[in-house]
Amino acid sequence: MSAVNGIAQRLPYQTNSTLRQQINAGDVQYEDLHLSHMSQMVRSGFFQKLDMAIVEVCAVTEEGYLIPTTSLGNTTAFVDCADRIIVEVNTTQPKALKGFHDVYDVQPVPHRDVIPIVHPDDRVGVPYIVCDPKKIVAIVPCDIPDKPAKLAPPDAEFEAMSAHLIRFLHEEVAAGRLPKHLLPLQSGVGSVANAVIQGLCRSDFEHLTVYTEVIQEGIFDLFDAGKLDFASGTSMTLSEKGLQRFYDRIDEYRKKIIFRPLEISNSPGVIRRLGVIAMNTALEFDIYGNVNSTHVLGTKIMNGIGGSGDFARNAYLTFFFTKSIAKNGDISSIVPMCSHIDHTEHDVDVFVTEQGLADVRGLCPKERALKIINQCAHPDYRPMLSDYFQRAMGTTKHANTPHILSEALSWHQRFAETKTMRV
Amino acid sequence: MSAVNGIAQRLPYQTNSTLRQQINAGDVQYEDLHLSHMSQMVRSGFFQKLDMAIVEVCAVTEEGYLIPTTSLGNTTAFVDCADRIIVEVNTTQPKALKGFHDVYDVQPVPHRDVIPIVHPDDRVGVPYIVCDPKKIVAIVPCDIPDKPAKLAPPDAEFEAMSAHLIRFLHEEVAAGRLPKHLLPLQSGVGSVANAVIQGLCRSDFEHLTVYTEVIQEGIFDLFDAGKLDFASGTSMTLSEKGLQRFYDRIDEYRKKIIFRPLEISNSPGVIRRLGVIAMNTALEFDIYGNVNSTHVLGTKIMNGIGGSGDFARNAYLTFFFTKSIAKNGDISSIVPMCSHIDHTEHDVDVFVTEQGLADVRGLCPKERALKIINQCAHPDYRPMLSDYFQRAMGTTKHANTPHILSEALSWHQRFAETKTMRV
Repeated sequence: MSAVNGIAQRLPYQTNSTLRQQINAGDVQYEDLHLSHMSQMVRSGFFQKLDMAIVEVCAVTEEGYLIPTTSLGNTTAFVDCADRIIVEVNTTQPKALKGFHDVYDVQPVPHRDVIPIVHPDDRVGVPYIVCDPKKIVAIVPCDIPDKPAKLAPPDAEFEAMSAHLIRFLHEEVAAGRLPKHLLPLQSGVGSVANAVIQGLCRSDFEHLTVYTEVIQEGIFDLFDAGKLDFASGTSMTLSEKGLQRFYDRIDEYRKKIIFRPLEISNSPGVIRRLGVIAMNTALEFDIYGNVNSTHVLGTKIMNGIGGSGDFARNAYLTFFFTKSIAKNGDISSIVPMCSHIDHTEHDVDVFVTEQGLADVRGLCPKERALKIINQCAHPDYRPMLSDYFQRAMGTTKHANTPHILSEALSWHQRFAETKTMRV
Repeated sequence: MSAVNGIAQRLPYQTNSTLRQQINAGDVQYEDLHLSHMSQMVRSGFFQKLDMAIVEVCAVTEEGYLIPTTSLGNTTAFVDCADRIIVEVNTTQPKALKGFHDVYDVQPVPHRDVIPIVHPDDRVGVPYIVCDPKKIVAIVPCDIPDKPAKLAPPDAEFEAMSAHLIRFLHEEVAAGRLPKHLLPLQSGVGSVANAVIQGLCRSDFEHLTVYTEVIQEGIFDLFDAGKLDFASGTSMTLSEKGLQRFYDRIDEYRKKIIFRPLEISNSPGVIRRLGVIAMNTALEFDIYGNVNSTHVLGTKIMNGIGGSGDFARNAYLTFFFTKSIAKNGDISSIVPMCSHIDHTEHDVDVFVTEQGLADVRGLCPKERALKIINQCAHPDYRPMLSDYFQRAMGTTKHANTPHILSEALSWHQRFAETKTMRV
């Protein structure tokens, strides 16, 4: 669609490189939404009337119910709200996906009831989408398989981050602040988050559960290592090899995996209730604990916030991970001030890079700065960050959040001026 | 306490001017938390063991139950977690407060059940705090009354904001995006938020409900105008006159008001479920829709984020209000880039100043900028903001979020250099 300039407006998330270029050239309007908001905004009519929805399924039952594929997402809301529906039966997706889904419709306000999930493996709905047959204007076959996910190969930095996480979780259990089998884990999309959760295979933790948005490769590694009891998500992104592993033992995995509508997988209430441990990836974070997860140099969007805000904001314990440097060391991922903020200083408990882990719970901004600089920043950048912080303390006479406004964004500025941005 | 330098660390919120100076001089460590996080963090031991809690009540029953005053807040969590408790019986608070409270304890993870509130007036707990009598080391009397709230008198700008809001709400009802009696209203602390909700007295709306954190003067005006059926909050801040009105008809108000623990009043799940309309105040917001509600010139803290994030993030419809200029016009409250961000571009639906209202639902950052500049900024600052935006478009070749990093904070910078900050 994007390759033929067929998209005028896109929301709520994207990961395609062609589309990214079009958005950053002003050719496509992109609204980057918290994913848990999307269905509600569609249902409430905030985006005007929905004319047409194209819905991917693996099968249509004799009763006319739709069986989704490995991506449930906002399909239910689109089916409920669109005037006309084109059903695309993807023949590359096995019919054995029947039984993986748990579709519970969140009622419209002001008549919403509780979403009664109290454990990640609670089934509260039906394993199909009910669709008014009158709305279906076409059922078409499709034989295009899912694009396999490409993940960066494991490296020493990923392993270091994972080791920091495991050590910290053990300390929390020992201190009585986390139960022995931890709490339901959420893990963001991409190589860093995947490597971190995959790393738990090398830990002593057992009987883990996952309550997440996207089920990635690492979660299957946890299953196969006998560490994981159950995983709940809204969709799945796997490599070709990972997909084969899934298909080979699909009947076994059906007992251990639920796909839920996005408004349930990312529900603020369910996340808070379950006490999820949220683990997401930052592009950069600043010395006071603000996180940029979307905009390179504050201007060009990378992918989008996705569900990271839904989880980070409502979790029991919120982690952000990033390598301490990027572009072969030309950029520090820890900066004086983020050039764009998606998760605020109020939202994050623990920061992790390959250098170390900064637990900032209960700390004021100045204490956070010292900890983040000393424990997360790359040694090459620590002196510059400390220098900025100390001079900002002097300039503002120890204000709550010391900054030198004329310098706060200078690290990005310098890079924007001297390097060509390739995003 | 702050006047005698008796506070080393403060959290999760503050409004005292002495304490504010101490925080901004680096003498007090302040952690500015989302209020819904506080009880959970106390209960989970994130702040270490709680030695002692001083708890204000209006009465202790024969059974040893504690009847809180007009501020329930996090008292339940403190009582549950502290080793020793000093109970302070405030004799200026009437015993007739008995029956206003609804104490429902959120269980610790991993055994949390649903909080079964589906209407603002649902009572789900008990009207007192259960406290282990063995923990109580002293019961002391106290005759210091609540400090009356000081609110700015109504003015033309407040009235204009309120009029914009009422017109918009009518349009939403007409378009079928809001029910006739709206949805439960939340309104932040302070003069602006109070004036806005008070303004609804002059609207045609009836049978309104409130699901908020702090019950202010304007909510009683709504009751007395016959517009409001019910209000749920965690505490109350009133003027001397307002307090007298409350006391005079306390038996009547008891049927219409519930005080809940903060973890319930600000519960992300309950807020999302009820579909709250969140109305909070910004210090400044930027052309792309990020909000600063805590830090003057990015460095000195004003009060804190309080519950604004709990509501803004999880509401059905999220508003931020501010006057378009401050300091007699020396400062524009709409800026190229916020100097501190508490609510991100992903969190807000509608911006309101006395100039007008910008509904940014479904808009990409560049569309948002045009709307916010043209409809919310003061006419004196519109040309400068448009000029910045247009040049940023050129510099970044229409990137998703155009910025000129060397200028983005220059408005604050100029002010920080030329004026003495009095915060």
